Amino acid sequence: MQHNNINVSYENEPSRDPDFTVNYKAPFNAEPRQDVLVQQFITPTEKFYVRNHAPVPDIKGESYALKVDGLVGNPLILSLNDIKNKFEKVTINASIQCAGNRRTMMSEYKKVKGVGWGIASLSTASWSGCRLRDVLEYAKAFTKNEGALHAVFWGLDFGCPEDNGKPYGSSITMEKAMDLDGDVLLAYDMNGEPLTRDHGYPLRVVAPGIIGARSVKWLDKVTVSSQESESFFQRRDYKIFHNGVNWDNVEKYWDKTPSLQELSIQSAICIPAPNSTLYLPFTITGYATSGGGRKVERVDISLDGGETWDYAELMGEDKGVCNKYWSWVLFKYTITKLPQLQNKDHQKIRLVCRAWDSASNTQPKDVKDIWNLRGVMNNSWHFVDITVLNQSVKNKL
Amino acid sequence: MQHNNINVSYENEPSRDPDFTVNYKAPFNAEPRQDVLVQQFITPTEKFYVRNHAPVPDIKGESYALKVDGLVGNPLILSLNDIKNKFEKVTINASIQCAGNRRTMMSEYKKVKGVGWGIASLSTASWSGCRLRDVLEYAKAFTKNEGALHAVFWGLDFGCPEDNGKPYGSSITMEKAMDLDGDVLLAYDMNGEPLTRDHGYPLRVVAPGIIGARSVKWLDKVTVSSQESESFFQRRDYKIFHNGVNWDNVEKYWDKTPSLQELSIQSAICIPAPNSTLYLPFTITGYATSGGGRKVERVDISLDGGETWDYAELMGEDKGVCNKYWSWVLFKYTITKLPQLQNKDHQKIRLVCRAWDSASNTQPKDVKDIWNLRGVMNNSWHFVDITVLNQSVKNKL
Repeated sequence: MQHNNINVSYENEPSRDPDFTVNYKAPFNAEPRQDVLVQQFITPTEKFYVRNHAPVPDIKGESYALKVDGLVGNPLILSLNDIKNKFEKVTINASIQCAGNRRTMMSEYKKVKGVGWGIASLSTASWSGCRLRDVLEYAKAFTKNEGALHAVFWGLDFGCPEDNGKPYGSSITMEKAMDLDGDVLLAYDMNGEPLTRDHGYPLRVVAPGIIGARSVKWLDKVTVSSQESESFFQRRDYKIFHNGVNWDNVEKYWDKTPSLQELSIQSAICIPAPNSTLYLPFTITGYATSGGGRKVERVDISLDGGETWDYAELMGEDKGVCNKYWSWVLFKYTITKLPQLQNKDHQKIRLVCRAWDSASNTQPKDVKDIWNLRGVMNNSWHFVDITVLNQSVKNKL
Repeated sequence: MQHNNINVSYENEPSRDPDFTVNYKAPFNAEPRQDVLVQQFITPTEKFYVRNHAPVPDIKGESYALKVDGLVGNPLILSLNDIKNKFEKVTINASIQCAGNRRTMMSEYKKVKGVGWGIASLSTASWSGCRLRDVLEYAKAFTKNEGALHAVFWGLDFGCPEDNGKPYGSSITMEKAMDLDGDVLLAYDMNGEPLTRDHGYPLRVVAPGIIGARSVKWLDKVTVSSQESESFFQRRDYKIFHNGVNWDNVEKYWDKTPSLQELSIQSAICIPAPNSTLYLPFTITGYATSGGGRKVERVDISLDGGETWDYAELMGEDKGVCNKYWSWVLFKYTITKLPQLQNKDHQKIRLVCRAWDSASNTQPKDVKDIWNLRGVMNNSWHFVDITVLNQSVKNKL
């Protein structure tokens, strides 16, 4: 198979859950069913959304080696056993969310470029590995004053069509990488088992609180640098523009628009599905999440398209060993009566959710106002139109 | 003068800038002129907005003592000289913003309770003092696991009418207080001079990145506690609700709604003033700020009420000695032509600004959607309606 003159083979892909919604076949991009997603706090590994940029490499753990170089006093080549044995094993629960989550809804308002995603390109896992910080300290990484500003990652997934066959690459700030409370892991386990091939076996970055694009899988190398990654995916993608930027003028905006890092406040209703027909009582179930370790303080539910609101019930919170909130919260809201339904056979209503985080940030109302060329960071109010039938209609059937 | 049976005297208030817009006389609440506010990055002390909750105490530095108690191994009583001599002197630039900034605009949509504020209840100063963290370490503050979760502050400004004559009180989390990058100061200098009486002489808290209400002035005591402050101003004020909460049902919402801490993304146009009549070219000037040390990444300007946008120019940034962005940014945007103006005497336009921070958070469009009973955290898009005259009209005059 050939993309942009790059020879790329998808003949050795892993097997996947047949229940996935496949948004793009090669590279493989798929999300779980939205009702399945919110059945549990920790997403089962086989249900965890997959966002690949190239064929999945087939790496043998025994011969794997991680390189650490750049602005360090002690460049490293570490085997998988080195990583497991030399550094403390840390386990955190963290959600990972693609910057393109809910892109399809943005594209419905006005066409954007990128893989279409519904509302399920995020999932939550228990990740175990060593701290990136510990590895960088072992490598004697330079300080900020010595010019060390970015931790640059390269994967082993050669053949990214957008980047002339190079592997996927990305970077985070050294401030995040070295933050005692930043919890950036080089993870080798997911939900208590070694990473699967689709999720980066044998080693991946887990950078919680920031867009999934920075959590590089099949990690080949960490380079400490004064500059952010030169990868296409750092410099020419995953940026949010205002609506005056289009494919004719984008060149003058790439460099002056920062790369996305921290996620914004987000929520979505996963149950009921759009266009459902329901009887009372029924329960709305969904997720909410924020970036930077900020806590989701509340989720508001509206039954009238956003005119009036009530608090949803948040189903537990998970802080675990971390000082920050890296995991989503699931929420529910049960509707037992609907005044508008009296003396009617049915009532069409628009359910809306919006979340607020510990910095009083909330979601924008209209996708129109945050529309952008690449369709990233769609965190507009999420709505679901449904029809509620009067119980008397049910009784007559 | 008597408030709620509390004897409160406002006979010994300091003198103030006659140019202030006084929003409430006693206690004194005033903001600078919005055009004056954005003339400089550091606000001159006499122009810095004042938000008092009681008469200004008249404290002698020589006899002042700070108490530190609660969950500490080594309770302290420190003189002002102790504070200046025992602990490292640190200087940071930081904006302080009242949670009620832009309340008047919210009240214009639907009445809220609280002192009316325009767009200038925030200002920026250079603050010097010691780190709260250093004092708490000296006091051998307990750890989180030992139950130390909040740093509770009490002022010496007895006579708060809302709180039965008690002094003003508030608290922040120990996580913020002890954060190496949190930069919470016990400040004794403002813009290189000892604090003025209105700004908390001889010692105040400066808790950057969070609402001004937590930066307690005339600091009497710091208590390390497992509970947040029991002050009215922590438990029954400075909270944001959804629009279904009113004065009849608020009692059931106070306890389950968290106290405001980190500020959200905010911006406003300070020049031109609303209803100005202008000729081309002219320049829009304003400020943008975010909470939690997040960077203001960009400010968008619209000349058509929010349909299309362009980037404003950000005038420098200030990170100083801190790893976080505690200060506002000032922005400008010059309009040299206006296609709609051709063949017309004048054109009425709506200027709009909105900012984005490093977590891709942006301001909500409509004040309606974030309206709340106490009128806090109004960070909706800021707009200014103006009339632009055609130059040919000018030439005819």
